[in-house]
Amino acid sequence: MRVLVTGAAGFVGRALIPVLARSGHSVLATDQTCAGLREAGAEQVFEGDIADAGLRSAATARAEAIIHLATVPGGAAEIDPVLARRINVETSMALSEEFAASRSAGRFVFASSIAVLGDPLPTPVDDHTPLRPRMLYGAHKAMIETWLATLARRGQLAAVSVRLPGIVARPMTPAGMKSAYSSDLFHAIAAGRPIELPVSPGATMWLMSVSQVAQCFARAVEVDPASLPPSCAVTLPAQRVSMTELVGEICEQCNASPSLASYAPDPTLEAGFGRQPPLVAAEAERLGFAHDGTLASLVRSALQTLTPEHR
Amino acid sequence: MRVLVTGAAGFVGRALIPVLARSGHSVLATDQTCAGLREAGAEQVFEGDIADAGLRSAATARAEAIIHLATVPGGAAEIDPVLARRINVETSMALSEEFAASRSAGRFVFASSIAVLGDPLPTPVDDHTPLRPRMLYGAHKAMIETWLATLARRGQLAAVSVRLPGIVARPMTPAGMKSAYSSDLFHAIAAGRPIELPVSPGATMWLMSVSQVAQCFARAVEVDPASLPPSCAVTLPAQRVSMTELVGEICEQCNASPSLASYAPDPTLEAGFGRQPPLVAAEAERLGFAHDGTLASLVRSALQTLTPEHR
Repeated sequence: MRVLVTGAAGFVGRALIPVLARSGHSVLATDQTCAGLREAGAEQVFEGDIADAGLRSAATARAEAIIHLATVPGGAAEIDPVLARRINVETSMALSEEFAASRSAGRFVFASSIAVLGDPLPTPVDDHTPLRPRMLYGAHKAMIETWLATLARRGQLAAVSVRLPGIVARPMTPAGMKSAYSSDLFHAIAAGRPIELPVSPGATMWLMSVSQVAQCFARAVEVDPASLPPSCAVTLPAQRVSMTELVGEICEQCNASPSLASYAPDPTLEAGFGRQPPLVAAEAERLGFAHDGTLASLVRSALQTLTPEHR
Repeated sequence: MRVLVTGAAGFVGRALIPVLARSGHSVLATDQTCAGLREAGAEQVFEGDIADAGLRSAATARAEAIIHLATVPGGAAEIDPVLARRINVETSMALSEEFAASRSAGRFVFASSIAVLGDPLPTPVDDHTPLRPRMLYGAHKAMIETWLATLARRGQLAAVSVRLPGIVARPMTPAGMKSAYSSDLFHAIAAGRPIELPVSPGATMWLMSVSQVAQCFARAVEVDPASLPPSCAVTLPAQRVSMTELVGEICEQCNASPSLASYAPDPTLEAGFGRQPPLVAAEAERLGFAHDGTLASLVRSALQTLTPEHR
């Protein structure tokens, strides 16, 4: 199948392209800069701004499915709400409308987020937990879930919204975004550097390695639309790990001392990212989505994605 | 309080302005054409396109509360989805964001719709019925409900989304929009004209007179934000009436023969508008929203809104 990946040059996109190519798909890729995407396995690249109708028209013309990753993420959306609205809401609606008009019931996989759930969260979170986003980003994702489910109900798209958990290990960000601490932790310990974490040792997070996330997107392209819940949305079955467990396992695999990690909890970050309760992702599991398996395999997979330049 | 009404020249807006003015509010009004709005009680009018940032800025500058009625309604949204997205989603988001930035936790009342519920509906519909819109219009309204509830959760707005039922008696539409049959019925019988209805005699609809809708909006401006459900949305407690009952009561009050009405059911219209189950609007009732009381008072109120030119 010819699958268009938007935001293809991002962390998830770069991991996803080779997975799709190995599964026999022809990958079309679009992003603002597309350096290295052909080498990653993309058959054709469309360099430009996804908010531009001309770029969208060119990129979607031959696509039989779309995996829509392009987004203005959480922290950036809070800084520039108008840009975030344009990309996360207006452009997502335009892209899905145009794709629905161009072919009958085409597959549209949307990268949603656990940010749609908001905080504080009930215990456990399951497929019936109401969506009460607190971040603008989470509201935008919830709105597009509603939009895509409507187009699916009308028979115009085969929509699947996939709610992503925390993904490790993202590249180090120069600005050191605080919410990136769970990824920064991998970089620090692998390099033998101390790190101060903005959450408590008992903080709990839902995590998945980027290679496992890529597997989930590949699965989303194949899943039977008739088997989806009415929301057309699934929360991926992430592993719930505590910061202490995570630090311990990374240190074990890196032969490092857990004393590299120290803790200076920030109440807001702890509330927003470090209080994730048990997660029952029954719908996703029924549909064939899976997490990394064990904490050891999650950490191993995340460590493999650290490139030397990022350590 | 200085209350800005958008879409103020529409059917609901024109009924709402005098109600607000009589309640002691200063009414600011905006619409594409504002003829007659000062006479209706508006202190100041802002004529222009709500999609224009300059118009929004001028209209909201002095507003202490906003009642946002401006919309591209159901049938029109299906005909021009891009315009509908621009007005119903993008402009609603921009207006609420801008208002939230201009003052702390200002009151923002949003005209939502029972179209957020979709069809087929469960029996009964209550405050826990999931939103599964089928019309683009309904999806747009559900998306903005999510958006406003997020801004409310963040303390940026005091948002109230009010889901409107069928409103009678709207002016006759020149094109005779099929879904307007429940309003057209009033005009026809009051004028002694026969009318063919596109639903069955047993079709059931949720209805409210426009003056009662105006009362509900006036109530929405006053309601304690802390008493709202997490969705910040309420389905108004409309009366559920069958077409036979409605025809009978209108004919009684107009001294006309029920044989003026004939029936030629259209399955799509019947499914979308004529199968409304019992409605339990507990949240709205708890918050002081009410329907017209009796079928006789609903019909009497609707007949009073028929102006001679519309009969």
